[in-house]
Formats: sequence, C-alpha cells, structure tokens
Amino acid sequence: MLQLRQPYLLFLGDVSVKSDAKTAFGLRDWARDKVLGEFALPAAGVSLGLPALTPRQAAEQGAGSLVIGVAPAGGALPPHWLAALEEAIEAGLDIVSGLHTRLSSFERLADQARARGVRLVDVRHSDTPFPAGTGARRSGRRVLTVGTDCALGKKYTALALTDALRARGAAADFRATGQTGILITGGGVAIDAVISDFIAGAAEVLSPAAAPEHWDVIEGQGALFHPAYAGVTLGLLHGSQPDAVVLCHDPSRASIEGHPAFPIPPLGEAIDAYLRAGRLTNPAVRCVGLSINSSTLSDSDWSTYAARLRAELGLPVVDPMRGGVDALADALLAP
Amino acid sequence: MLQLRQPYLLFLGDVSVKSDAKTAFGLRDWARDKVLGEFALPAAGVSLGLPALTPRQAAEQGAGSLVIGVAPAGGALPPHWLAALEEAIEAGLDIVSGLHTRLSSFERLADQARARGVRLVDVRHSDTPFPAGTGARRSGRRVLTVGTDCALGKKYTALALTDALRARGAAADFRATGQTGILITGGGVAIDAVISDFIAGAAEVLSPAAAPEHWDVIEGQGALFHPAYAGVTLGLLHGSQPDAVVLCHDPSRASIEGHPAFPIPPLGEAIDAYLRAGRLTNPAVRCVGLSINSSTLSDSDWSTYAARLRAELGLPVVDPMRGGVDALADALLAP
Repeated sequence: MLQLRQPYLLFLGDVSVKSDAKTAFGLRDWARDKVLGEFALPAAGVSLGLPALTPRQAAEQGAGSLVIGVAPAGGALPPHWLAALEEAIEAGLDIVSGLHTRLSSFERLADQARARGVRLVDVRHSDTPFPAGTGARRSGRRVLTVGTDCALGKKYTALALTDALRARGAAADFRATGQTGILITGGGVAIDAVISDFIAGAAEVLSPAAAPEHWDVIEGQGALFHPAYAGVTLGLLHGSQPDAVVLCHDPSRASIEGHPAFPIPPLGEAIDAYLRAGRLTNPAVRCVGLSINSSTLSDSDWSTYAARLRAELGLPVVDPMRGGVDALADALLAP
Repeated sequence: MLQLRQPYLLFLGDVSVKSDAKTAFGLRDWARDKVLGEFALPAAGVSLGLPALTPRQAAEQGAGSLVIGVAPAGGALPPHWLAALEEAIEAGLDIVSGLHTRLSSFERLADQARARGVRLVDVRHSDTPFPAGTGARRSGRRVLTVGTDCALGKKYTALALTDALRARGAAADFRATGQTGILITGGGVAIDAVISDFIAGAAEVLSPAAAPEHWDVIEGQGALFHPAYAGVTLGLLHGSQPDAVVLCHDPSRASIEGHPAFPIPPLGEAIDAYLRAGRLTNPAVRCVGLSINSSTLSDSDWSTYAARLRAELGLPVVDPMRGGVDALADALLAP
C-alpha cells in the first residue's frame, strides 16, 4: 500500500485561478497539521495564506514531500515548473503528483530523484502489484461509504465518521481509495488505477485483518448505478467486506452527473442494491444510515427532508456539514 | 483495440509436458486455419503434429506472428528461449506472448524489434488507453456469455454461437475479452488487464456501433458471484449493453472454484442477478438460454438434467459439445 512522507510543502506552480489549486486548498483545510507551508513560482496569482517556504527551508523544518497541489489545464506538467521540482528533489523531498503525466516520464527528474534517493510518487497511477481477492473473512470491523453517484461526499463522510468513532474511544482508521484521500491521510490505494483483475484484492490489502473492535472506515468510489464506474464500486465493496455501509446522496441530483439518461434510483432501492451485492462477501452487512449533501437545501427544507427520509427508511439521516455524523457513529457502535 | 498479425507460427520452447502447451493446442484445435506450423527447441518433448517450420520458412509462407504457445512454470520467460525469439524477430515476425513477464522487459528483444520494425505484443498486459464508459446506446445487437463461475465455457459458447449465427446468414463477430480468445480471433481486449476506471469504456470500444442487424457475440469473464472478479464482470456487462445474455454453467460445481465458501446460486437467481445488473445500460436485456458444460454427466443424466432445467426456467438449454448451440441462435434471431 502506498505510504507518503509527511508533512508536506504544497506547490502552487504559477496558477492564477483558485479552482485550479483545489487539491492544495483541500489539503490546507482537511489536513492542516500535515502541511508546513506553500511554495509558488513568482508569477502565481493564488496563495493559501500559509507560510511561504523554499524547499530547503521546508526540508529543514522536517517536510517529507513536495505535493503538486494544482491541476493545470489539460492535466500535463508545464515544463517551466521543472526547475522548482528539481529544487525540491535537491532539498531531499519526495515529489507527489496527482497529474496525468507521470513524473518519471521526465528523464531529468527521474535521474535526479534516483541520485538524491527520493521518490517520484504518481498518486493517480498504481505501480504496486496486488493479489487477486480471496474472499476470506478477516478480523476487525469495516464500514464503507457508498453512494448514489460520484462526488457527493463519500470521502468527507468517511473522514468525519473516523473522527466521530475516535471521539467515542473506538480505534478507527480512515482508508483512502482516491488521490485526495491518499494525500490527506498519507497512504491508501487509488482503487480506480488498479488493474481490474485485482480491484477486490487491492481492497482486501487496503483494510487488512485488525483487532476485533477496530474500525476501518473505507472511502467509497463511484456508484453501482454509474454506467462507467460500477465495476470499481462492486470490486471495492466485495474486497472491503463491510459490516456496514453508509449511503451518501445529494438530493439536488435527479440523474448521474454527466449522464442524464441514468436516473438516480429511489434511496430504498439503492440501499437494497448495495446490501444485496455486499452480502456476497459479508452476509451480515447492514446499512447504518444516510449521509446527505444538503448544500442546496434551506435549513427548513433540510429538516423536512431529513425527517421524511428517517420516517421512510427507518435509518439515521445526517449531513456531515450540518450537525455532524454522530448518529452514524452511534449506530455503528450500538450493541 | 489490439489486432494481431495472422497467421501464426506456434512456439513450443522446450516444454516436455502437453499441459504446459495448452495455448498452442487450443490454437491448433480452434483456429487451425490461422496456424501455419510449429517451431520448437531441439529439447522439446511435445509436438502439435503440425509442419515444423523455422521462423524464416514461416515468414516466407506469410506468417505474421510467432505465438508463444506454452506456459512455463512460474509464468516467466526462460532466458535460453531468447535466441529463438530473436530468430523470429530477424525473420520479420511479431512476437506474441501471454506470459506474465513482459517481452519488452528484455532490452535486447526490445531493441531488436524496434530495429526490425516488428511488435512485441504482451496479450496479458494492456498498454492501450481506453476512455471512460459513456453509457450511450449504440446501434447493432449484442449478446454476452455470462457465467455462474470462471472457466466453464463462456468463450467456447460465444465462439460456437458466432458460427451458428453466421450459418443462419446473420452478420456476427466474436469479441474476445481474454488472451486465448484474442489469439484465436486475432484481436480484442484483455478486459481483466484494463485499468479498473476504464472497464466499461474498454467494453464499449470492443463492441462498437454496428449495422442494426449485426450481432457482436461477446466473450464474458468472471462471474457476479465471484469474490475476486465480480467487478470485471459487472463493468464488462455494463459496457457491452447486451440485448441478450446466455448463462453458462457447470452442474458439477457446487461452489466457486477455489472458493468453497462461495456457493453457486440457483440458476434462476443467477439469471435474475445478471438481468437486474444489465438493465442499467440496456433495459431490454433478456436471457435467451443456458449453455451447460455437461462433461461430467452421462448421456441419460444430461437428457434428464436439461429437460428439468428447460421446464424449470422456460428457456433453451444446450451443451455446445453435445448437440451444439442452434437453440440459442434461433432464440436470438426470433422476431
């Protein structure tokens, strides 16, 4: 499983639009204690409001990696950023990138990293060989966030749930399956980058056998109702063998984002589909509640909506941004 | 999509056990018209009974590729085979391998192939970038062979069904998704080698839009009930958008092979699971029959078994090796 060297120095390149630095802002907000500062080219028009550090200064303060926290148009690495990356390598930092272009495709970077003994880590790619799934039950408890679609709060719900479990004295680990989650937590498996034969096997590796009362809180990916990504979702579900799932949903979406011909099913049906599929590797899987991204609803509409769902499904209904996920943590720990 | 240069010269290395040359025997039996001859090292203890040709002789007779038709213990390429592969490259043949070791990891082979302008093709690996699935409906008709487990006749059923459709005057193409199928037909996508984000997308590329009455007969992979491979199965099902599925089954198996804790579901339930999942991308998907690998049954037991299944499920039940797949082809073409 991938393990990153933290803390980070966040690289901003020379981007001038905040939305192009989404990853850097996310790390600042969600993993502030793992970020030492920011490093930008002179032409940059964006700042995170963190201490400006050179790679050498960051290394002296204990930084382990320079994280490329920006997504330049097209996903490729602009050649005029290379000198800054070389400066970081020279300072002894690993370089961590979520870009499409592999860092190692730049021969000079690869040579320099080898000579300096640091790593070029492409979070979007997977070079780790994984075994095929075994389906064998393992000790420890697991909860997986699943969704009616992509990008509606599965990662955020899992992070909040990990905190809530720990606040109750439970041993819990967030298990990241996407690049932002991996950057936040410092490790994980980019599950959608794994060779398809090994999806379930990679999920088994991600949440290994643990103490009987320990919870792995696994970040879900995709959706069973998504025409492109349901295979990833199913393999992750099977390999995770979750004891519990949390269904994540955004009530403002009538159909899968970008796929208007694919309606989002009624929530009861969605839960049934996940439980039916999950029973293959864990016959006791149950749904402990719903996590709603209610950002489009007014306070009173949210109250009405949540109350209606609770009555209809007989399950806790939360929005992590509106009151937290305590009800989900309580349901997980209920005897 | 991968396209191989046919016809083939089959390479046997120096294996001495027939079962280690399974791929070569399979190609001899299933794609005889695409095989010119065999080429073995002096120490080989196995022959296919085909003309023995040197790479040069084969090239002069029009061969396009040398196919490594053997699986040495461990899946690695024995170094003492390299001289024979170099001889084939020198003769202008592509080298096609289904081994775990990539041919291109041998620098001398890679250099020589580049210089000679031939390809090193690793059928087990996928270097083709595929798009994400779109879910968009496309013209043409598709049938997918699905299964209650792996390795019970999905490829053979699809090959036989392609022949039967053509025999009825229908336009039909076999679409290979595994390495043996790819070698037989000369092209396809090794679906389990695709990056998991692109399973459905690769399946869409494999069976592109076609004439309205044209049938793609798609080789299924894995099983929805398999703890390791269901993700591949689901992505292939969604991307294939089949109008029809054929359920393949081996009545001698009570559980998934190698996974005794995973029982094979009742066949009616298995059909329901495939249709429910398939409806996401083709709401009209139907099951047109069952293809049974009945090799463990006596003639009379087979008759009894098939009659019982027909009555129970109301569907045609065939064994491609015992009477062929005519009933499936008729069901596909029925108005």
